[in-house]
Amino acid sequence: MSNILGKQSLKFEVPPYIIGTANIVGKKEGEGPLGKLFDVVGEDDLFGEETWEEAESSMQNKAASWAIDNAKLTKDQIRYIFAGDLLGQTIATSFGLLNFNVPLFGLYGACSTAGESLSLAAMTVAAGYAENVLAVTSSHFASAEKQFRYPLEYGNQRPLAASWTVTGSGAFIVSSKQGKIKISGITTGKIIDYGIKDSMNMGAAMAPAACDTIYQNLMDFSFQPEDYDKIVTGDLGYIGSDILIDLLKEKGFDISIQHMDCGKKIFDQKTQDTHAGGSGCGCSAATLSAYLLKEIEMGNLKRILFVPTGALLSTVSFNEGQSVPGIAHGVIIERCE
Amino acid sequence: MSNILGKQSLKFEVPPYIIGTANIVGKKEGEGPLGKLFDVVGEDDLFGEETWEEAESSMQNKAASWAIDNAKLTKDQIRYIFAGDLLGQTIATSFGLLNFNVPLFGLYGACSTAGESLSLAAMTVAAGYAENVLAVTSSHFASAEKQFRYPLEYGNQRPLAASWTVTGSGAFIVSSKQGKIKISGITTGKIIDYGIKDSMNMGAAMAPAACDTIYQNLMDFSFQPEDYDKIVTGDLGYIGSDILIDLLKEKGFDISIQHMDCGKKIFDQKTQDTHAGGSGCGCSAATLSAYLLKEIEMGNLKRILFVPTGALLSTVSFNEGQSVPGIAHGVIIERCE
Repeated sequence: MSNILGKQSLKFEVPPYIIGTANIVGKKEGEGPLGKLFDVVGEDDLFGEETWEEAESSMQNKAASWAIDNAKLTKDQIRYIFAGDLLGQTIATSFGLLNFNVPLFGLYGACSTAGESLSLAAMTVAAGYAENVLAVTSSHFASAEKQFRYPLEYGNQRPLAASWTVTGSGAFIVSSKQGKIKISGITTGKIIDYGIKDSMNMGAAMAPAACDTIYQNLMDFSFQPEDYDKIVTGDLGYIGSDILIDLLKEKGFDISIQHMDCGKKIFDQKTQDTHAGGSGCGCSAATLSAYLLKEIEMGNLKRILFVPTGALLSTVSFNEGQSVPGIAHGVIIERCE
Repeated sequence: MSNILGKQSLKFEVPPYIIGTANIVGKKEGEGPLGKLFDVVGEDDLFGEETWEEAESSMQNKAASWAIDNAKLTKDQIRYIFAGDLLGQTIATSFGLLNFNVPLFGLYGACSTAGESLSLAAMTVAAGYAENVLAVTSSHFASAEKQFRYPLEYGNQRPLAASWTVTGSGAFIVSSKQGKIKISGITTGKIIDYGIKDSMNMGAAMAPAACDTIYQNLMDFSFQPEDYDKIVTGDLGYIGSDILIDLLKEKGFDISIQHMDCGKKIFDQKTQDTHAGGSGCGCSAATLSAYLLKEIEMGNLKRILFVPTGALLSTVSFNEGQSVPGIAHGVIIERCE
């Protein structure tokens, strides 16, 4: 039981490596601050398909295939896939990975899926169950609006607390083969519910879960915030990020210097009008793939805590008056010296 | 890498045990052939709640809590939960397990989730990442009809190829602590698509996936069908079971003697009129918990291959003309001598 650390963390005795990654985003994301860093930016958001759902599947398919290429592997060298998305019955994943012919564990962690899939991939490789595992997730603005809010044609207004679902996918190859970047540990999140019922303010709903996971990570590893170069949340956005920093201060940790939120990073607040910021599984996955892993590889960051955050709701649960619980999965990603 | 066996299986060097289980089903399931074996049969299908979704959450909550009791553990001795259900954004799970305060990996494997959750629980325990892990899943006839077909009030007719979603939940405690029943290996399924587009004939859509996983299991372990006392599919029903047996015969294996389908077992075909048979995550999970594990514990079965099967569709994918791919996850469950 020597990998077990504290209440809800694992510190891998033999850490797995991230040896390949790829990403693809939509046009709006390509026009944002990280635009030049993405592998591929779509010319429109259909990616040559006929429906938004097929477009999302196509993104996931491409990101996964390119990540395998990037790791100089072939599909038959991938032993497991851990994958999921936001859509009901995770159809972006099922149809996106249809032709891969690789054993699949389907996941649903809402926008925390990038963290969940990387955690399980790391556990699988570190245990010696596989040499190479693929972790992939996606989201699409138009398929998510149709799923959770209104079809785009309806032209609804969005409250200022609402986030903008990122059109994007990020894929990662986790491997026992030595690389430049390792996953040294994970902190797995619990469902946290502060009773927030506003599905148009998901940042507020998810901040308590992010707080819980980050706090537990710091406790389990006996770390202070400054032991990380960045503590990266997935898609809390402007409102949720402020709440997170306040909540953690109440628990004795000030992460205001280290904190970065992918939802704030991926769009320009002044020129791109996304209200609370970016969101979706693809937000944290594409930002990790295109920006953070490059910064780690170049040595600009040495160790980060990557904490994608998910809001656990559906239109059915919302319409039936349920709250919006959150969950957040932490992954420690480090540069190998 | 000594746990790895063949193309897509693991054979655990230190097998984990199933040390506790519990189940709960609806009224109709209680009137079926396995009726007397279930832990609890609901008087109506609302289980004291106001909506079908809350009823499903309540079942999952109860089954999970009782399984922990059954294993003589408390919630704080459970290190991880692996759980999922059929509903969009798996809300039965999120709200059912809200108060557990245990790190959660949310899954979506359609009706294969009992196999997927047991596989990941076994991998986690066998790797030494946890002493005790909870695997739980559920389905509910009325929440599934509302999700995938029509609300009950509409009174729609059902084609004869349609299955009847089981109202039920099954929960399992997988542990490193020695028990009478062990999980000796797993065979993880790939997405298999034969292009079947009839969402009212899910048995036919899932049979190729069951065939693929069972075939690969027999190959990886160098087993013949008679090495198992039973080869148990989840919810192929009458049509899918016949197809499975034919498909495996074409590949050189006759499993007609060993094969049992939970969807055929849980309802009485003559008196209960469920057309193709039972289905849903709860079908295989409740049958394993109430019937199969007891048979193994009593020594009537020594080794079974448990293969829940999932149909990867949503109303959106169906309405957009997509096929219904399948997936099936195999778990070898044995009596300890």
